[in-house]
Amino acid sequence: MDKKQNILIIGAGLCGSLLALRMGQRGYNVSVYEMRQDLRKVDISAGRSINLAFSDRGNKAMKLVGLEDKVKALCIPMNGRMIHDDHGKTFQSNYSGRDHEYINSISRGELNALLLNEAEKHDNVNIYFNKKCKSVDFEKTTALFTDYNNEDDFIEDADIIIATDGAGSAMRKSYYLGKKFLFSFSQAYLTHGYKELSILPKENGDYKIYKNALHIWPRGSFMLIALPNLDGSFTVTLFLSYDEGKYNFNNLINQDMVLEFFREEFPDTLAVMPNLVDDFFKNPTAPLGTIKCSPWHYKGNTLLMGDAAHAIVPFYGQGMNASFEDVVEFDKVLDKNLADWESTFKAFEKARKKDTDSIADLAIDNFHEMKDHVANPIFQEKRKLEMALEKTFPDDYSSKYSLVTFNEDIGYREAMLRGRAQDKAILNLLTDGVITLDDDLKTTLKKVTQETEAILEDDRIAGLK
Amino acid sequence: MDKKQNILIIGAGLCGSLLALRMGQRGYNVSVYEMRQDLRKVDISAGRSINLAFSDRGNKAMKLVGLEDKVKALCIPMNGRMIHDDHGKTFQSNYSGRDHEYINSISRGELNALLLNEAEKHDNVNIYFNKKCKSVDFEKTTALFTDYNNEDDFIEDADIIIATDGAGSAMRKSYYLGKKFLFSFSQAYLTHGYKELSILPKENGDYKIYKNALHIWPRGSFMLIALPNLDGSFTVTLFLSYDEGKYNFNNLINQDMVLEFFREEFPDTLAVMPNLVDDFFKNPTAPLGTIKCSPWHYKGNTLLMGDAAHAIVPFYGQGMNASFEDVVEFDKVLDKNLADWESTFKAFEKARKKDTDSIADLAIDNFHEMKDHVANPIFQEKRKLEMALEKTFPDDYSSKYSLVTFNEDIGYREAMLRGRAQDKAILNLLTDGVITLDDDLKTTLKKVTQETEAILEDDRIAGLK
Repeated sequence: MDKKQNILIIGAGLCGSLLALRMGQRGYNVSVYEMRQDLRKVDISAGRSINLAFSDRGNKAMKLVGLEDKVKALCIPMNGRMIHDDHGKTFQSNYSGRDHEYINSISRGELNALLLNEAEKHDNVNIYFNKKCKSVDFEKTTALFTDYNNEDDFIEDADIIIATDGAGSAMRKSYYLGKKFLFSFSQAYLTHGYKELSILPKENGDYKIYKNALHIWPRGSFMLIALPNLDGSFTVTLFLSYDEGKYNFNNLINQDMVLEFFREEFPDTLAVMPNLVDDFFKNPTAPLGTIKCSPWHYKGNTLLMGDAAHAIVPFYGQGMNASFEDVVEFDKVLDKNLADWESTFKAFEKARKKDTDSIADLAIDNFHEMKDHVANPIFQEKRKLEMALEKTFPDDYSSKYSLVTFNEDIGYREAMLRGRAQDKAILNLLTDGVITLDDDLKTTLKKVTQETEAILEDDRIAGLK
Repeated sequence: MDKKQNILIIGAGLCGSLLALRMGQRGYNVSVYEMRQDLRKVDISAGRSINLAFSDRGNKAMKLVGLEDKVKALCIPMNGRMIHDDHGKTFQSNYSGRDHEYINSISRGELNALLLNEAEKHDNVNIYFNKKCKSVDFEKTTALFTDYNNEDDFIEDADIIIATDGAGSAMRKSYYLGKKFLFSFSQAYLTHGYKELSILPKENGDYKIYKNALHIWPRGSFMLIALPNLDGSFTVTLFLSYDEGKYNFNNLINQDMVLEFFREEFPDTLAVMPNLVDDFFKNPTAPLGTIKCSPWHYKGNTLLMGDAAHAIVPFYGQGMNASFEDVVEFDKVLDKNLADWESTFKAFEKARKKDTDSIADLAIDNFHEMKDHVANPIFQEKRKLEMALEKTFPDDYSSKYSLVTFNEDIGYREAMLRGRAQDKAILNLLTDGVITLDDDLKTTLKKVTQETEAILEDDRIAGLK
């Protein structure tokens, strides 16, 4: 394919700006149109989460574009979960038994700005802000935009259009409403919404709670979490049902109710969140949805990527990592030099969709794990055992969490199948007393491995996935 | 709730006409608006399948409204699958080891006409044809219609609106486009479409192939099926990929290709289908989709029911039965005399949705079973064993198929969970040589039951469904 081809990218968020950078590096003529203002010039948090979990799959993409070191400077390592019980007592549960495996808190804005700066260093990459995509004519390979500067509409033509315009993708909407081909599509909302709050720094700029952890206050049917920022603050997120339970977003309508709720459920937060009530009523409550669809592409004309193709709930900390991995996988397909864009897009979806479907399902699993299971004795026993296995046999054992988060060369689907089978094996072996925490670890590893293989084999025989 | 309340039903198909009849029997004022002409006066197959599988869940609904005997007269019993191999050899695989358990082929049109006639016997039920619903204002509880007789639009008001307007439901579209509440929605298409063909009767009116079976020509990645009609004909359906494999709907574009395909794959059909080519090019190719959504209701104003709430693929023969069962379950909730319509609708969805989600998934399972597994030795061994177990222990064993089809007092979800576990148990016990077809059946039943319980227990411990 001719490198001089014109590629139109819709959306200059994390995925779009990384894709623009990579396609620029590969020599294509890249034009990016973004509906928001340039976040390097204006502060626009716009209801999106302020910080994110960054881990090995995302880092693999940074290596691909040569930005590993620059991104590292933006990262705050989080070695594990710091769990706060309802008496305010805390204990830490590490993400891995291997010391070099941890996740990071990173600022969405800082990372996006870095990617935009790097993309714009290429003369063949141009980024336009304040241009809102209204629809895409995927048969003609043109996109209709509104210029927010003057409210004028204009049409852009390109050789291919890649939409990285997020969960509310205008191009995906054109696929759906166009009814020109069979478009499988799902949007699934949790019964819970979320609201961002904050723990501000001490007066001297220090962190008010332990810096290097992802804090969780698990309460069974709801939870609070906190991730550190470089400025000494934490971004806190409350995940809560809209209308079920004693306290919910629909009935927390005044200061007294909110304070009563936090006093009862998260007593240790009150001292570090004097701004709680202000945050609560200033910040929006947003829904938690999963989006899946297929096909991602229309012939060789247009392609969905990132959240536009597969938006997921945030509970595995993999949303950004998955979108970055899209770019890595797309880059691999480009390396194959297939005959045309249609073959390229088809090969990309075929290789990739099974994995993004899997991380979507894993993220829902982890919603239940974080709000509930982490406080459950049998799950805690499992985690202890897995930490010991990973520490003692670093080359021979990886938990589901490690497979998903720290094994960027294993696809999400394989990580899910193996990880779920392992979880099932350990939980059953513990419950049946076949293994205990006091047993010889080598024997335990052997039993876990055998039982995991047996579970996978039984599923294969039954024709299950 | 006041019995004099006005209930507006959108759609007078199988579900809508049964619902109108039942609500009429209960004394409500019922108005039904149907987009098509009155099928009792005009022949309108309109691309929908001509005959359908009718079984125990559907029959439970007929008992509820007192129509069991009248419907029985329309039924042709099908005791099993008649499987045609690629040399034209046939063998029958019964649906159950119990002689009184079989499914029926029934004409959609005849059954619908019966339900309309019975509904109209009630003075408090009025049915209007040629009235197409364009949208529903679910906040005002009004529906906008176009009268096809004069192209005029008009608005109808009601105390509640129940939409039974099928997979393409106008009210569901209003829910989706309205964005007034979080509406989870999915439409998922198979890679295969379907086309209806026919085997006409002999000149003397006799059936050309065996009458009392559902005929299947399974070919791994595609299949042909045939169901008998009362007039001596069979309605034949080809399920085939749109674009994959040597032969597919996209490349079967002329007479020679079609004949070559049938000669190669379904040689025994050519003699009984002289009208094959005519049918093939006259009849449309239609997609196979699954639709799920939630919530089904908006407050106490509006409710989706039948295919409008949960359209499924046809492979379990449960589409109509599931929609009829909706009416039975809704009737049960009405018997509870809850405080208001909102509580009624909420209770109905809570009780019902898990089951319609399950039959949707089971129907996809059966797509693979019918086109592929029925021709697979280990699955055939399993079926033989299950027939023997059902015959020998009629009170103690039911296969997944029997649980779904002949056990109308067990919900689809329970049938799915137990049925899948049983399938997994038997396939693994057979593969591992723990049981064989020659063993003492009582011992085999014990082993299957124990292994099934163990599988269910392992899943429970692992927190799986």
